[in-house]
Amino acid sequence: MADNDLAAFKEMFLIAPFIADLGMELESIGKGECIAFLNLEQRHLQQSGFVHAGVLATVADHTAGAAASTLLEAGRYVMTIEFKISFLRAAKGDRLICRARVIKPGRRFSFVEAEVSCVSSGKERLAAKASATMAILAFGNE
Amino acid sequence: MADNDLAAFKEMFLIAPFIADLGMELESIGKGECIAFLNLEQRHLQQSGFVHAGVLATVADHTAGAAASTLLEAGRYVMTIEFKISFLRAAKGDRLICRARVIKPGRRFSFVEAEVSCVSSGKERLAAKASATMAILAFGNE
Amino acid sequence: MADNDLAAFKEMFLIAPFIADLGMELESIGKGECIAFLNLEQRHLQQSGFVHAGVLATVADHTAGAAASTLLEAGRYVMTIEFKISFLRAAKGDRLICRARVIKPGRRFSFVEAEVSCVSSGKERLAAKASATMAILAFGNE
Amino acid sequence: MADNDLAAFKEMFLIAPFIADLGMELESIGKGECIAFLNLEQRHLQQSGFVHAGVLATVADHTAGAAASTLLEAGRYVMTIEFKISFLRAAKGDRLICRARVIKPGRRFSFVEAEVSCVSSGKERLAAKASATMAILAFGNE
Repeated sequence: MADNDLAAFKEMFLIAPFIADLGMELESIGKGECIAFLNLEQRHLQQSGFVHAGVLATVADHTAGAAASTLLEAGRYVMTIEFKISFLRAAKGDRLICRARVIKPGRRFSFVEAEVSCVSSGKERLAAKASATMAILAFGNE
Repeated sequence: MADNDLAAFKEMFLIAPFIADLGMELESIGKGECIAFLNLEQRHLQQSGFVHAGVLATVADHTAGAAASTLLEAGRYVMTIEFKISFLRAAKGDRLICRARVIKPGRRFSFVEAEVSCVSSGKERLAAKASATMAILAFGNE
Repeated sequence: MADNDLAAFKEMFLIAPFIADLGMELESIGKGECIAFLNLEQRHLQQSGFVHAGVLATVADHTAGAAASTLLEAGRYVMTIEFKISFLRAAKGDRLICRARVIKPGRRFSFVEAEVSCVSSGKERLAAKASATMAILAFGNE
Repeated sequence: MADNDLAAFKEMFLIAPFIADLGMELESIGKGECIAFLNLEQRHLQQSGFVHAGVLATVADHTAGAAASTLLEAGRYVMTIEFKISFLRAAKGDRLICRARVIKPGRRFSFVEAEVSCVSSGKERLAAKASATMAILAFGNE
């Protein structure tokens, strides 16, 4: 991918107001894959001091959608039909890193997985894992 | 439930910084049930103009957790192990309303469902449905 | 529904060899709804003496698919894209009853829920709950 | 693992009547991992001629449970709380192979993934992927 492609993807990633507001950023993107991160702030937390499940879910969903969107034909977009997310460890630290990968691309829907890790004192640990079904839709139709 | 109980629950609901930041509020709460809402703002949206899946997921998860917490013995708290959420209609409108209900309480786990509706021009339509497994944990143990 | 329609549906229900082999039967079917049952035998069990999770999952999936198929236009069929099933109580008894209902029909996908109860000594208790995404496909295309 | 351990595990795998009846067999088992297979017969199919979703779900669940059981302390057993399974390709062929792996072991529950592939004319293709939450319980308690 050329540098200007990555720049374009980074910009597109933030067109979603909720993602820009949350503070998520795109790290890298390629065919069927996307890595994004979120520098953690107090406002991202649960009352327990751990990252809120909704933050982990948002990061997983948006990164998964970006990964799926790299495999689209022109004039198509993706929409999440459903996802499941399992919370494997309470997340506390400086940064979330999410790696999403299309496991099975399709013409009508794609199956994508996303792993969200939390970085604390330079050490990264898996915090959550999600799997999503993404519908592939045509602009101006349905 | 006495009025001061509801006031206490409303305050507790917002102790989570992410929930206060998002703008969610508790509407009502009872044994195994909780209703919460979110007045929609531009910052809650996806690039398409629809509510971001992460917002719907956060609202569902937090309301489900509150519903489960109404059935706890003293000294216990709930933590989401996993949830699945299905997006049934693109959500656009003024307000989200979420109704969560414990389907099966347990000593170790509770199974909770949450429906998120979107209100537009006074009309309410189901936008998403989630099901969650909540672990029941004891403070200061595990 | 006319009696001969129900008879036709009952026959169709059993065209799937795995369902006939398992011993499932259709109880009733209507617009967006289906009820099926399974008289439990020793071979349906887990080593613990409880019904195997795979049996509960099969019953939920097949009944959900039948419910979704009642809302199809001619020339279409449904295929399960994914389902999640939660096991709420260990199931032991004489018979499983499954009630499936389409929560949100669609042109491309339907969202269906199925509850599986177990009848023991005439008393029925909820054993499992599933939610499924069903793709709607056209014969001879994709 | 010694050969007699594998033999013991193979025997234990089939103590579940539904698994023995289905025809599943254990291929190999190790710390946090299990591989099992099923030689496909006509009775395992859906009306379409493809493997029934319930068969794929059973194979995934049972193999995942076996993988989780390899990490238990004495006097404990596992029980599936919930699983989600996504069907990635219609499965047709001679044999299913399932590989399950514990992603996150725990004291109270384990998170396990299982991939089910279908072998046709010697070629193996991923047919379904499942993720399960397994509760870890003590015999004679709860």
